Amino acid sequence: MQYDVKNLKLAGAGKLKIEWAERFMPVLRLIRKRFIKEKPLKDVRMACCLHVTTETANLMITLKAGGAKPYLCASNPLSTQDEVAASLVKDFGIPVFAVRGESNQIYYQHINSCLDINPLITMDDGADLVTQLHTKRKNQAQNVIGGSEETTTGVIRLKSMQAKGVLLFPVLAVNDSKTKHFFDNRYGTGQSTLDGIMRATNVLFSGATVVIAGYGWCGRGVASRAKGLGANVIVTEVDSLKAIEATMDGFLVMPMKKAAPLGDVFITLTGDINVLTREHFRLMKDGAIVANSGHFNVEIDINSLKKMSKKRRAVRPNVEEYTLGSGKRIFLLGEGRLINLAAAEGHPASVMDMSFANQALGAEYMYRKAETLQNRVYSIPAEIDDSIARLKLESMGIKIDKLTPEQKKYLASWEMGT
Amino acid sequence: MQYDVKNLKLAGAGKLKIEWAERFMPVLRLIRKRFIKEKPLKDVRMACCLHVTTETANLMITLKAGGAKPYLCASNPLSTQDEVAASLVKDFGIPVFAVRGESNQIYYQHINSCLDINPLITMDDGADLVTQLHTKRKNQAQNVIGGSEETTTGVIRLKSMQAKGVLLFPVLAVNDSKTKHFFDNRYGTGQSTLDGIMRATNVLFSGATVVIAGYGWCGRGVASRAKGLGANVIVTEVDSLKAIEATMDGFLVMPMKKAAPLGDVFITLTGDINVLTREHFRLMKDGAIVANSGHFNVEIDINSLKKMSKKRRAVRPNVEEYTLGSGKRIFLLGEGRLINLAAAEGHPASVMDMSFANQALGAEYMYRKAETLQNRVYSIPAEIDDSIARLKLESMGIKIDKLTPEQKKYLASWEMGT
Amino acid sequence: MQYDVKNLKLAGAGKLKIEWAERFMPVLRLIRKRFIKEKPLKDVRMACCLHVTTETANLMITLKAGGAKPYLCASNPLSTQDEVAASLVKDFGIPVFAVRGESNQIYYQHINSCLDINPLITMDDGADLVTQLHTKRKNQAQNVIGGSEETTTGVIRLKSMQAKGVLLFPVLAVNDSKTKHFFDNRYGTGQSTLDGIMRATNVLFSGATVVIAGYGWCGRGVASRAKGLGANVIVTEVDSLKAIEATMDGFLVMPMKKAAPLGDVFITLTGDINVLTREHFRLMKDGAIVANSGHFNVEIDINSLKKMSKKRRAVRPNVEEYTLGSGKRIFLLGEGRLINLAAAEGHPASVMDMSFANQALGAEYMYRKAETLQNRVYSIPAEIDDSIARLKLESMGIKIDKLTPEQKKYLASWEMGT
Amino acid sequence: MQYDVKNLKLAGAGKLKIEWAERFMPVLRLIRKRFIKEKPLKDVRMACCLHVTTETANLMITLKAGGAKPYLCASNPLSTQDEVAASLVKDFGIPVFAVRGESNQIYYQHINSCLDINPLITMDDGADLVTQLHTKRKNQAQNVIGGSEETTTGVIRLKSMQAKGVLLFPVLAVNDSKTKHFFDNRYGTGQSTLDGIMRATNVLFSGATVVIAGYGWCGRGVASRAKGLGANVIVTEVDSLKAIEATMDGFLVMPMKKAAPLGDVFITLTGDINVLTREHFRLMKDGAIVANSGHFNVEIDINSLKKMSKKRRAVRPNVEEYTLGSGKRIFLLGEGRLINLAAAEGHPASVMDMSFANQALGAEYMYRKAETLQNRVYSIPAEIDDSIARLKLESMGIKIDKLTPEQKKYLASWEMGT
Repeated sequence: MQYDVKNLKLAGAGKLKIEWAERFMPVLRLIRKRFIKEKPLKDVRMACCLHVTTETANLMITLKAGGAKPYLCASNPLSTQDEVAASLVKDFGIPVFAVRGESNQIYYQHINSCLDINPLITMDDGADLVTQLHTKRKNQAQNVIGGSEETTTGVIRLKSMQAKGVLLFPVLAVNDSKTKHFFDNRYGTGQSTLDGIMRATNVLFSGATVVIAGYGWCGRGVASRAKGLGANVIVTEVDSLKAIEATMDGFLVMPMKKAAPLGDVFITLTGDINVLTREHFRLMKDGAIVANSGHFNVEIDINSLKKMSKKRRAVRPNVEEYTLGSGKRIFLLGEGRLINLAAAEGHPASVMDMSFANQALGAEYMYRKAETLQNRVYSIPAEIDDSIARLKLESMGIKIDKLTPEQKKYLASWEMGT
Repeated sequence: MQYDVKNLKLAGAGKLKIEWAERFMPVLRLIRKRFIKEKPLKDVRMACCLHVTTETANLMITLKAGGAKPYLCASNPLSTQDEVAASLVKDFGIPVFAVRGESNQIYYQHINSCLDINPLITMDDGADLVTQLHTKRKNQAQNVIGGSEETTTGVIRLKSMQAKGVLLFPVLAVNDSKTKHFFDNRYGTGQSTLDGIMRATNVLFSGATVVIAGYGWCGRGVASRAKGLGANVIVTEVDSLKAIEATMDGFLVMPMKKAAPLGDVFITLTGDINVLTREHFRLMKDGAIVANSGHFNVEIDINSLKKMSKKRRAVRPNVEEYTLGSGKRIFLLGEGRLINLAAAEGHPASVMDMSFANQALGAEYMYRKAETLQNRVYSIPAEIDDSIARLKLESMGIKIDKLTPEQKKYLASWEMGT
Repeated sequence: MQYDVKNLKLAGAGKLKIEWAERFMPVLRLIRKRFIKEKPLKDVRMACCLHVTTETANLMITLKAGGAKPYLCASNPLSTQDEVAASLVKDFGIPVFAVRGESNQIYYQHINSCLDINPLITMDDGADLVTQLHTKRKNQAQNVIGGSEETTTGVIRLKSMQAKGVLLFPVLAVNDSKTKHFFDNRYGTGQSTLDGIMRATNVLFSGATVVIAGYGWCGRGVASRAKGLGANVIVTEVDSLKAIEATMDGFLVMPMKKAAPLGDVFITLTGDINVLTREHFRLMKDGAIVANSGHFNVEIDINSLKKMSKKRRAVRPNVEEYTLGSGKRIFLLGEGRLINLAAAEGHPASVMDMSFANQALGAEYMYRKAETLQNRVYSIPAEIDDSIARLKLESMGIKIDKLTPEQKKYLASWEMGT
Repeated sequence: MQYDVKNLKLAGAGKLKIEWAERFMPVLRLIRKRFIKEKPLKDVRMACCLHVTTETANLMITLKAGGAKPYLCASNPLSTQDEVAASLVKDFGIPVFAVRGESNQIYYQHINSCLDINPLITMDDGADLVTQLHTKRKNQAQNVIGGSEETTTGVIRLKSMQAKGVLLFPVLAVNDSKTKHFFDNRYGTGQSTLDGIMRATNVLFSGATVVIAGYGWCGRGVASRAKGLGANVIVTEVDSLKAIEATMDGFLVMPMKKAAPLGDVFITLTGDINVLTREHFRLMKDGAIVANSGHFNVEIDINSLKKMSKKRRAVRPNVEEYTLGSGKRIFLLGEGRLINLAAAEGHPASVMDMSFANQALGAEYMYRKAETLQNRVYSIPAEIDDSIARLKLESMGIKIDKLTPEQKKYLASWEMGT
């Protein structure tokens, strides 16, 4: 078996962590049970480019239980948990190509290792693997029957490919499932982003001014949690509607230029490029902390920051101090990469449970239905989405009301009014 | 001019109130300015069935400013502000047929008075007028080129009509505009429902257990505000996904039977029938307060409550005490009608500003485009929705960032990754 | 029987309201039960200067049940509920001297009517009656054995009298009881202040910038509730410690001059004079809403506002529009008097239950112990305070843990450590 | 120089961390500046028993800058940051006796090492050192002129000593300073407790039921932050007043027996013994997480948990899995010791800034005034407390209003009323 991980001796610690996550993933456990019996993915080669975390490990184990042959590489150079990678290889016999802190070159080499298996199905988190396929390994793409994509940023890229007519196989936008983006993006990113910043800096949020760029599902999750920790939150946006929502949720909304001199902590979650730039760094307070929780490390213009700085040094794990010409210091966290994965453990398992239930059932669906689909971006069918919600609710031990026949009839009728 | 209002002498007070609301409706004011110049609705007869409030008055004045001939009746027997009705007639020359507390018979008589004008366009809040047209005055419906509908409940009714193939003209679902349901349903209903309950009862929310039936846009608005006032909030739902959301938002979720003995205050906002029934009343505490903020007064099974009671009396305005056989007392607010309109003044004007901007621009759009539309339920075009958001934001004096050309390009591209 | 109320015909409505409040005052009901049996205040003449509300009515009835002869006048010209005053006279035989909207002259005349009975015990809310006694009717003061004071402002005045050595009898600072100021000032003022502003203006708090002057118990109550309703809250303070607390609670803190141009709604709760002045009015936005929830109407410099204005008119009940020379309009609510009493019904009964339990038990204590007390300001004994908390908790149906003998011993020991 | 630390080679990392904390401690920095000039503690031997963290390091450095000779040992066997201890010894020449995870025997040996210097002043966090002095080294106590105590639990022990007449020198209750317990206990413990649990478990708070034992300053801090992270919070109490406060703050209050089967996460902060016992473990859900954030590891009855368990194993750092006879698993965090120090880094430096400013100025005060004090527990003088608040506010860049002469006069007067 081929693989490339940091150190197989880490496997013991990794296995314990994988088991720990498993406790909080009851829906995935139920799916695994069925997969073991039905083997719906028998012998399907899968190239999976995901954050190599304990939750992903449970997804891989589930896919393998369903008969698949998953190969795993990282979807971010700084998000791999090396002990988890080791355990997947050693304890579960799943090939992994991922080392935390790998260079960009190795990062793509690992993606290519996964593509070398000539996959039938791809699984992406950010669309790097699928992009590699569509650019450097284009003629291999015809062997792929379909793929799936986990995150907002990846879906945006895929829709752009679709719009330009270059997408070569159908892809399921797992991110668009309600049981994914309502929860993972909002509650998962909300907590784990702040968790990452606390681990990196031990900063007190209470009384701090936190500037959040972007009020999408992720941004509003982080804004809500920062407020819940006692911060004064400022939101920046480019969309009028979201800006009014942020205002009505009680946040201050202003352009980044106005926010720059006010913030103690800055967090970008826009999915766009160069959200914090030279003109903002210049305006920031001495000691400002700058982090990103968007998918790619392009939201903070790190190059400009480097150029503006006369000195640069690591002061804590995941904290780099940039001293500007003026003597002012700016602290960049986790090299501008997803701070929840760089400095903490990513989303809690209980929220990834639903996201990865979508991935597992999505793979099954794609394998069955690929022939009926066009080279487009699809949502997971609503029935699958709903069934995941039902299973999750049950696993939480929560009971709810059922519509009575009279209520169902009423909802379907229109004659009865005042 | 025909009309039926409580007392024209109330007009003075009504005019002041209409002006007060106008201050908080800058978007509608801008539209009115343009309408005065362009007269886009010249001579269009409109039958409008809406809550007769200060905000609606401003909408009527705007339609008239655009050349239209609006006739107004109430969309709920208990929501009319009599002084506003009087002022519309006396000060603005707009025919109104609405008296607060009118019987159901008079209510429909007033709808018919509006239909007697043979309208070209209808405007509904709950679809009672359009239902009247499609049942009792069917052959008149062919003269109507289109309509609009304000609220969730009405849209559900219209979609049911569409599904059954009985809808006789196109209708714009104003409720589906983002600038409507994101704000009016959430922030408007959230505050005004609790405002109504406070005015009716002066009850302390801090420390009270508030049971909220339904976690749609309205329900989550009320849940959030009740929590913000210090209540312990329990949510009941029939939908698994919304139930998980409510849980993750920190609320207790359980079936109504479990919640019934725990609640101090119950609020229904489901759009469905018989949400609180005999079996729940039986389980409630002595002194439980029961209110509805859903569109129709069918959510609380008042008939059963009456039958279970040995005594019934008014103890405060909008509070009726029901003494059950057991001696236990249940307090029903506002006869089970929309409590924010029955006991308070409905949504604050600043939030209705966006809703009624949609109505005004929707009417203009319908008049221009009706011929191109089928007999279906349509959303307001996204451009109109967006433009309202932009105008609102400007009127709030809030500035936001703009995408740079580089950022726009990045969002449209897919090649650039890790 | 002497009295001066608006109209005895209002008694019916007043009685219903008094009964309504009674439901939410279980602790006072328990005290009343005992008082009926024990008559601890038999024939004690009491001069009571309190807000004439439904809750005060229940206190008066309780005192009378205990054998006392209470005479009641208003502690604010704009807080009297006329129907309650009428019912107290007609249905309960308690002399009341209070008419909503009375002039300052009548206000003091009413205080004097209460003092004419030659009271043994006084009861104040703001110390106006006790001040009258110590200035205009000084030689009558020697007949008084003791008094009580309800509110922060009154306690400050009394402590100033004590410091200057002019206090002529002992006074119980009811406000200092934990079961009073932790609840009434925080949760009561918190909700009722916003309730008053909503009834007066129907303004949307969501998205509004609310400036709160003073972060004492009342101010933090209002700040917390305004945040809970979705407002962006700015706090002004003169005390460093409270300013840091406000900051760490997530609020923006700044001087009033900086806040003046930002606020949509201003609320003063400082207990001090001229908190909002000419220099602030000048800086405010067109349409700013200005209200006070501190005890006296001195916090807003209304005289300056009048002088700056070229026009003044009532635009809604409790809303007066001041048009400045510049054309800018400022809306003053409730003539700058306690907005929760001027425009709403004051604190909810369930919170006044504890405050007035302190008053009733305080009166009993004073009557028994006055001889042992000096001419100073005293707190209610802790046992009384604790017993009220216990009764309240029981009445709420809430059970809590009890210390085990082992736990008690541990808390009293010091030897056991790591 | 004597010392006992894990490894001096860790000093480099420790120094960086100490510097990092220093950035967030502007008040202590100002004090240090003055101390360097004035040397107010010249040659004063100090025995300091505190959590060996980066913030404590800054306090030690400040004391030394003031001329003192501080010796430092740990106040908890599991709270020492070994790299900080190493740096204090190597880089700052301060003797430290503390190794993370030391046995209880070594723990007391280290305390004795500090006492061997025959200190003039003591500094405690939990009163273990002072207890050692008053039991095992009683005749040495006469050489001590005074001490200080950091935390609630220690103050309770000292007051018990005072009540029993056994306290042998005066002690300053630093905990009682407003600039200490309002902030450190509330905002510090609030965030750092949840931070510790997240680092230990990566559990999602959103949607979890968190049971908090104790609603003192620490408990309400944690309750507020858990709510802010989306948890459903249950509070248990033994005090009626605090129980009502918790209820009015929107939390469910119930006895622990009722809460035990409902909780996902349990946190004790009572300062008392055996708050979670056999009878509660028996009722808990499979997978319940149990943590303590009170000073001593006596709040959770770990012995009983051990006896009830058939199996015990470490599953993550700071997480021990106990499998009961029934097969149910309970996860104990950080051996039941202060979870914020065991699994995270303790309170953020910005909040410890004020606490340790109290310690530094308290030591100076004690050295100057000890002769005038009795063998009792004293608060830090209000002027010192106030001055810390002022300095902190300034360092945060926040400006506030000042009382005008007119306002000061008004506050001191009593004649002016309605």
